[in-house]
Amino acid sequence: MAGLRSKKEYLSSLRDNREVYFKGRRVSDVTKHEYLGKVARHLCLEFDIAENPNYRDLVTFEPKRDGKRYSRYFKIPENSNDLLARNKMIDLGTRLGKTVVLLIKEIGTDCLFALNIVSRMIDKKYGTAYHKRVNEYHDYCMKNDLAMSVAQTDVKGNRSLGPSDQEHPDYYLRIVEDKKDGIVVRGAKAHTTYAPLANEILVIPTRAMSEKDKDYAVAFAVPANSKGLKMIASPFGGDSESSFHNPISASRHMTESLTIFDDVFIPRERVFLQREWDFAGQLALRFVDFHRFTAISYKAPLLDLLVGTAFLMADYNGIGDASHVRDKLAKLISYAETVKAMTAASAHSCRIVDGVAIPDPLISNTAKYYFASNYHQSLSYLQDIAGGLVVTGPHELDVRGPATKKYIERYLGGKGVSAMNRLKAINLVRDLTASDFGGYYQLLQIHAEGSIEAEKLAVYRAYNPKPSIDYAKSIAGIP
Amino acid sequence: MAGLRSKKEYLSSLRDNREVYFKGRRVSDVTKHEYLGKVARHLCLEFDIAENPNYRDLVTFEPKRDGKRYSRYFKIPENSNDLLARNKMIDLGTRLGKTVVLLIKEIGTDCLFALNIVSRMIDKKYGTAYHKRVNEYHDYCMKNDLAMSVAQTDVKGNRSLGPSDQEHPDYYLRIVEDKKDGIVVRGAKAHTTYAPLANEILVIPTRAMSEKDKDYAVAFAVPANSKGLKMIASPFGGDSESSFHNPISASRHMTESLTIFDDVFIPRERVFLQREWDFAGQLALRFVDFHRFTAISYKAPLLDLLVGTAFLMADYNGIGDASHVRDKLAKLISYAETVKAMTAASAHSCRIVDGVAIPDPLISNTAKYYFASNYHQSLSYLQDIAGGLVVTGPHELDVRGPATKKYIERYLGGKGVSAMNRLKAINLVRDLTASDFGGYYQLLQIHAEGSIEAEKLAVYRAYNPKPSIDYAKSIAGIP
Amino acid sequence: MAGLRSKKEYLSSLRDNREVYFKGRRVSDVTKHEYLGKVARHLCLEFDIAENPNYRDLVTFEPKRDGKRYSRYFKIPENSNDLLARNKMIDLGTRLGKTVVLLIKEIGTDCLFALNIVSRMIDKKYGTAYHKRVNEYHDYCMKNDLAMSVAQTDVKGNRSLGPSDQEHPDYYLRIVEDKKDGIVVRGAKAHTTYAPLANEILVIPTRAMSEKDKDYAVAFAVPANSKGLKMIASPFGGDSESSFHNPISASRHMTESLTIFDDVFIPRERVFLQREWDFAGQLALRFVDFHRFTAISYKAPLLDLLVGTAFLMADYNGIGDASHVRDKLAKLISYAETVKAMTAASAHSCRIVDGVAIPDPLISNTAKYYFASNYHQSLSYLQDIAGGLVVTGPHELDVRGPATKKYIERYLGGKGVSAMNRLKAINLVRDLTASDFGGYYQLLQIHAEGSIEAEKLAVYRAYNPKPSIDYAKSIAGIP
Amino acid sequence: MAGLRSKKEYLSSLRDNREVYFKGRRVSDVTKHEYLGKVARHLCLEFDIAENPNYRDLVTFEPKRDGKRYSRYFKIPENSNDLLARNKMIDLGTRLGKTVVLLIKEIGTDCLFALNIVSRMIDKKYGTAYHKRVNEYHDYCMKNDLAMSVAQTDVKGNRSLGPSDQEHPDYYLRIVEDKKDGIVVRGAKAHTTYAPLANEILVIPTRAMSEKDKDYAVAFAVPANSKGLKMIASPFGGDSESSFHNPISASRHMTESLTIFDDVFIPRERVFLQREWDFAGQLALRFVDFHRFTAISYKAPLLDLLVGTAFLMADYNGIGDASHVRDKLAKLISYAETVKAMTAASAHSCRIVDGVAIPDPLISNTAKYYFASNYHQSLSYLQDIAGGLVVTGPHELDVRGPATKKYIERYLGGKGVSAMNRLKAINLVRDLTASDFGGYYQLLQIHAEGSIEAEKLAVYRAYNPKPSIDYAKSIAGIP
Repeated sequence: MAGLRSKKEYLSSLRDNREVYFKGRRVSDVTKHEYLGKVARHLCLEFDIAENPNYRDLVTFEPKRDGKRYSRYFKIPENSNDLLARNKMIDLGTRLGKTVVLLIKEIGTDCLFALNIVSRMIDKKYGTAYHKRVNEYHDYCMKNDLAMSVAQTDVKGNRSLGPSDQEHPDYYLRIVEDKKDGIVVRGAKAHTTYAPLANEILVIPTRAMSEKDKDYAVAFAVPANSKGLKMIASPFGGDSESSFHNPISASRHMTESLTIFDDVFIPRERVFLQREWDFAGQLALRFVDFHRFTAISYKAPLLDLLVGTAFLMADYNGIGDASHVRDKLAKLISYAETVKAMTAASAHSCRIVDGVAIPDPLISNTAKYYFASNYHQSLSYLQDIAGGLVVTGPHELDVRGPATKKYIERYLGGKGVSAMNRLKAINLVRDLTASDFGGYYQLLQIHAEGSIEAEKLAVYRAYNPKPSIDYAKSIAGIP
Repeated sequence: MAGLRSKKEYLSSLRDNREVYFKGRRVSDVTKHEYLGKVARHLCLEFDIAENPNYRDLVTFEPKRDGKRYSRYFKIPENSNDLLARNKMIDLGTRLGKTVVLLIKEIGTDCLFALNIVSRMIDKKYGTAYHKRVNEYHDYCMKNDLAMSVAQTDVKGNRSLGPSDQEHPDYYLRIVEDKKDGIVVRGAKAHTTYAPLANEILVIPTRAMSEKDKDYAVAFAVPANSKGLKMIASPFGGDSESSFHNPISASRHMTESLTIFDDVFIPRERVFLQREWDFAGQLALRFVDFHRFTAISYKAPLLDLLVGTAFLMADYNGIGDASHVRDKLAKLISYAETVKAMTAASAHSCRIVDGVAIPDPLISNTAKYYFASNYHQSLSYLQDIAGGLVVTGPHELDVRGPATKKYIERYLGGKGVSAMNRLKAINLVRDLTASDFGGYYQLLQIHAEGSIEAEKLAVYRAYNPKPSIDYAKSIAGIP
Repeated sequence: MAGLRSKKEYLSSLRDNREVYFKGRRVSDVTKHEYLGKVARHLCLEFDIAENPNYRDLVTFEPKRDGKRYSRYFKIPENSNDLLARNKMIDLGTRLGKTVVLLIKEIGTDCLFALNIVSRMIDKKYGTAYHKRVNEYHDYCMKNDLAMSVAQTDVKGNRSLGPSDQEHPDYYLRIVEDKKDGIVVRGAKAHTTYAPLANEILVIPTRAMSEKDKDYAVAFAVPANSKGLKMIASPFGGDSESSFHNPISASRHMTESLTIFDDVFIPRERVFLQREWDFAGQLALRFVDFHRFTAISYKAPLLDLLVGTAFLMADYNGIGDASHVRDKLAKLISYAETVKAMTAASAHSCRIVDGVAIPDPLISNTAKYYFASNYHQSLSYLQDIAGGLVVTGPHELDVRGPATKKYIERYLGGKGVSAMNRLKAINLVRDLTASDFGGYYQLLQIHAEGSIEAEKLAVYRAYNPKPSIDYAKSIAGIP
Repeated sequence: MAGLRSKKEYLSSLRDNREVYFKGRRVSDVTKHEYLGKVARHLCLEFDIAENPNYRDLVTFEPKRDGKRYSRYFKIPENSNDLLARNKMIDLGTRLGKTVVLLIKEIGTDCLFALNIVSRMIDKKYGTAYHKRVNEYHDYCMKNDLAMSVAQTDVKGNRSLGPSDQEHPDYYLRIVEDKKDGIVVRGAKAHTTYAPLANEILVIPTRAMSEKDKDYAVAFAVPANSKGLKMIASPFGGDSESSFHNPISASRHMTESLTIFDDVFIPRERVFLQREWDFAGQLALRFVDFHRFTAISYKAPLLDLLVGTAFLMADYNGIGDASHVRDKLAKLISYAETVKAMTAASAHSCRIVDGVAIPDPLISNTAKYYFASNYHQSLSYLQDIAGGLVVTGPHELDVRGPATKKYIERYLGGKGVSAMNRLKAINLVRDLTASDFGGYYQLLQIHAEGSIEAEKLAVYRAYNPKPSIDYAKSIAGIP
């Protein structure tokens, strides 16, 4: 279909001689790699769904009523309904993958929306022409149905110092040379999600900059196989091959890379910020406005899964009626439903800027902050209900072994459940909460899409205290 | 205006020889009583607003486009927008009163909505004609613009026993006699909000009943001056006369009564449940569905006030930039905005039953539970920011006294603020958080509109775990 | 008895023409004042106990085995046992008063111990003779069995600025003149506990100072009736006269004053720090080391009372076996026992400096921080168990009134308890948690004896991270 | 040395043809097994320390002053000092292993102490001779320096039903036959710590029993290689071989087994409870009294490690002075120091029963409950400080790989630290908190040595509410 790629086309596009390293070795074909291949195959779901008639209306759109459909990820949200549809689409993709793992176009389009808004602001101040470039690039990605990754977080070195005060000048990515038709950049971005599986890498600043940092104020896009671009993919997140022990992570996980720009040339038409240091912070924040909404959108299936698994384990262990278990279930439900309701509320209260609907940042940040700061405690409720067997139970081969099988079947049954099904549920708990994969997720909740402190700060900044202060003063009788 | 009373008419209607006691003495005229009169005068606001052209569209409605406007409280919500308008109206009334105190028609109409739904259910099962009676009564109240109070919570005695198992048969209100044209009831309801200031008292059961409790399954309405109806008004909530020390409670507070039915006759047309014990629980729960939404609606001004006062005190104390203060402000903002966003989400996700829109009980209960279980901790943040002077500061007469005035002015100033204004803000903190009134409010948050445990239980019950369990099973590979 | 005063002598000593103001008026005799008199009468307990043969060994000591006994408060702790005895003595005094209110010599002696240690340090550096002065003053107070108050917290103005940077030079107390035989001081100290009921006022700095603040680096002692010394006593903490409604606060509460030094002359022999600015912080911190231990010692009866009242209410309401109630009771028990066990642990781990045993500051600050940051939440558990009647119940006169008495007796009974006793327990809950007095206590827990943030900072500072870091490095394999 | 084995003797003793399964296969020699061998080698530390002159006084004792020294684990505590020494010994063993992993004799001796106390009680009631048997067995273990494992938790089936009500009669271990010289038992115990590496397996009931469960009321000891005794060792806890990525778990972890008694014969002299059902609960609880003290004792190194690693990461990331980081450090310190101080307090407040000192169960359970319910939240602070690189960083082979090494060295340095050392610290965080091993530990904290709910219940039960209730009544004026 015009504007939509098949998964085969997507996989094929990744075989472009990109420079990806895994465990110290160059990966010749990411789609066939033992670890990264799993990720690639999982990401194909995004392309599969678009071809599925049941979901087409939700995950694609037809901008000009000319029969040409494109991935809805590229639709710039214009109102609450667009945001709610985006939320539903992200939820669907995550959920259909029977997983808790994000797909790939979400982050890139979040970044495109931010560039859309901020490029207009820069042009207004400096008379530049970034907005046009951004629009053309947006169209290019949409029409070719590209998968984009966003590289934002610099490696930072000493985190209490700014870019130009670091011991090493490259701890933040920067412009090292200006050429006639573009710029050359050097530096490295940490934990870039899905970069080894993306077609394009979008780069934006990670923070506000001062004038002396202006070489560090840069945003651009490059193909993933650009010369000098190197990705060291992280191996953490579980490498189990057993779908019994690791029902999720044996076949699905995310990956991040250390994304290195070793003097990469960026052609002029792909540069979206070039030393306009006073907009670096704006761009970082706008991206985050969209990205936190994406974040809380794709958490919904995970949240439902935590609750559902807790109910399942409570039932299998015969403790569903215990008062303390009900208490924990109610807390897990509250946790999940609060995040979900807040996500909807954030869309309903969106603000329209130059035709682009921005999810209410106060609500979305509050939701993300609430989610992140209660995640570990919530896991502890699930672990509590599930029982110690989560980490003291038998191995898959014990369950099958002729000498051990019968004992496991006899002794590890629960309330109206076979030992096998109970162990499957128990293994899900371990994979989700107490494994390399579960640990990966704990870190993710704290640091991905902005840290807890960043969210708290965003809550503080997004809040306009004047009406509340005035209300307090009027009641206190202060003129 | 047809269908709307003036505040004068309202006050006049309360002089009807009702039997109200305060501090052991019969109150001859509640509107002129030292304590209850304050409450009555505050409640007049509800009638004032309806006459104010600025608010008329929000707080009144015109059901038949015949020029006859009625209080919007009586509008049965038919969709999300009606619920959002009701939310806005409740917020406005609370906020305009420069207070955190509920007005009066909210609770009564919550109850009318519940009776509307449940009466239809009873009629369907038993062939009774309650729905018609409820509708007629609804019209009667609306057309006469009456103020209704709801008496639900029985005194209960030993709370671990049901109505008919109590040591004393009257620990729950019950039917003691059937007459040709009505019934006679006996018992007492605890903490009935605003009963001494209401025109009508609506009575519904407080819990589900079993068959042996059927005499206790009763709902009805009676005028507040009915024979045998006695109200002992509670004096707690602060009796200060100083609007300096108690900027809120010196002029405004709520009141509850122990409402005693000493063999009160209820005419047939005012009886809405009579021994259909299997609907007692339904009625209690339906009321709560609406009432929790009202609860979280009228908390918004209080929440804003907590945040605004915290900002004000941070500024006056010169600590607005301290990191721990920002942290507490961010937590207070999150607390407030979560409840507010959830309230809107509950309206957006309403369910329509027989044409009546019910706010999503899972969301509204989650919001109420969140609100209630974090209230005390939130107050501690405000008290922390405000400082110890909240309870160690000078008296109003010290501020004015010739021997002390100058010292207070010299020593109690803050950052760019006079001692007087700083003390006003400090006094607001004390009134809100650390006074008889503030203490009243702490109890209210835990127990009013359902206890924390009731809300947690409601969260658990409102949740349908099947989809989540199925999702968990599909991922775990459990057939 | 030599070295011990009778309560009559104590009360008589307070009639010394001190300049105390209450509600804007000069108080002619604090012992007969409506509000302050209550406090004075309660403080007599400290003198009564010393005369009681049952307690004499605990609350007095005989330094020289010459038959002369003195109040044990003055005993400088030399080891764990002395600290444990002091802890027991403070607990006893608080508990015997059937109250949660501190007595009077605790704070003053905490300050004497700190002066003892720090004066030696100053002498060592500067060759001064403060230590001798402090010892002589200690003996003077001990031999005359004096009651001392400690004025530490300056009024501070803009709390983000230091003493000499304030808009007003007197926002911190300072030396304004040097005389041949002493100094003249000016300024005001906020919330000085019990100053209007003390014989002596001890003044120490509230924070570390830099050289430019040296005029603010001052510590001394003066009689409470010194010329120019003025106290504005705070009226908050409840003024109820009903021991039914306010079983604690009707007869007992604390009081703080704004303590003003309007050019007060301090004779040389009572000056303990005079511009040695580099010891101001030391003195503030050393005092706090002792004072936090006192703080957690006198909380024990309050903690037991919260737990006991919760058990009582659970029983009276018939909910003692409800699972959520047991959960809350267990949490309250844990809360109380943790603070108590930590207090003992702090004494067991004391450090001896120049013969003076200092309670382990890491443990005592951790305990105080834990206590303070969980107080509000703990109150909410008690309020939850007690029920809404705490603030919606009847007045004492309703309970006695002929028209209302019978209804209250009939309807407000609980499980095996009369309405009267249940109401007494309910009133205790209100007095403790939801009244002017209870509110006073909430603020006290956050701010008295150092704020939550101060305690957190003290925990951080008292911790020596080196061994833990080394342990981490050795495991991580970092050289 | 008489009474002490060398590690060689210990390892040799494990080669006794015991029936251990791992991943479905019989393990021929646990000491040489890939996974279990690691555990065995780590446990040798316990024997090494005893031979080390520096530690001999702490970890051995000489009961009869005859030159014969034995492991101090076997010393029955007689007073606070014995408990404090035991605490110190457990801490030392854990810490010297540069690990957070318990050694092996702790649990077995906890059980011996409990048997000592309860056997005397049974004898007193039933005239049995258990106490003598227990003493002889104690001596036997001590003189042969045996390593014992305790199998307590039954597999339980439907956890809401008692032993004899289960669908399957063997869901709790029971006596299936009485023989002249002993009994035959059948059943399975879940998560038995270190059973595959123990010489002896001690079995005690997991809960109180009623008369109908009397066949399930059984306690005994058997050699680990007894006929019919089968152990299925659990493989969870991490199987990494890289000490770079898993500095702890690559060489050290615990192991649990499903311990199956397939009609195992127990000789009379090793039976310590045989159908005296009314003592089953006592025995379970007494064991727990000692075992919770052991639990909080061996947590100290882990707690210090969490704090130390947090400080290290804060420093390496250059955020040690950030206010929110200090806040989290202070919370981690408080967390660690509270548990440690409570452990000491529990020893100081021990109760002596028949000459055996029992750590105060109210304090030790409160400490364990506090530890367990705050563990996950505390980990989140460490993860927050450490940063996302914990799960997105490079692999060991990337660090060494010629194509990737230089980039890692250039870009992953921190504040004054090489990339290598920073990665080592980061890897420690992952191993501790976000790996198979870290996940194992999360479950352990919730479920090992009793679940959170069990501890909360123990707190409730260990508390005598009478004094507090009486105090509340006396203040409320309730006769």
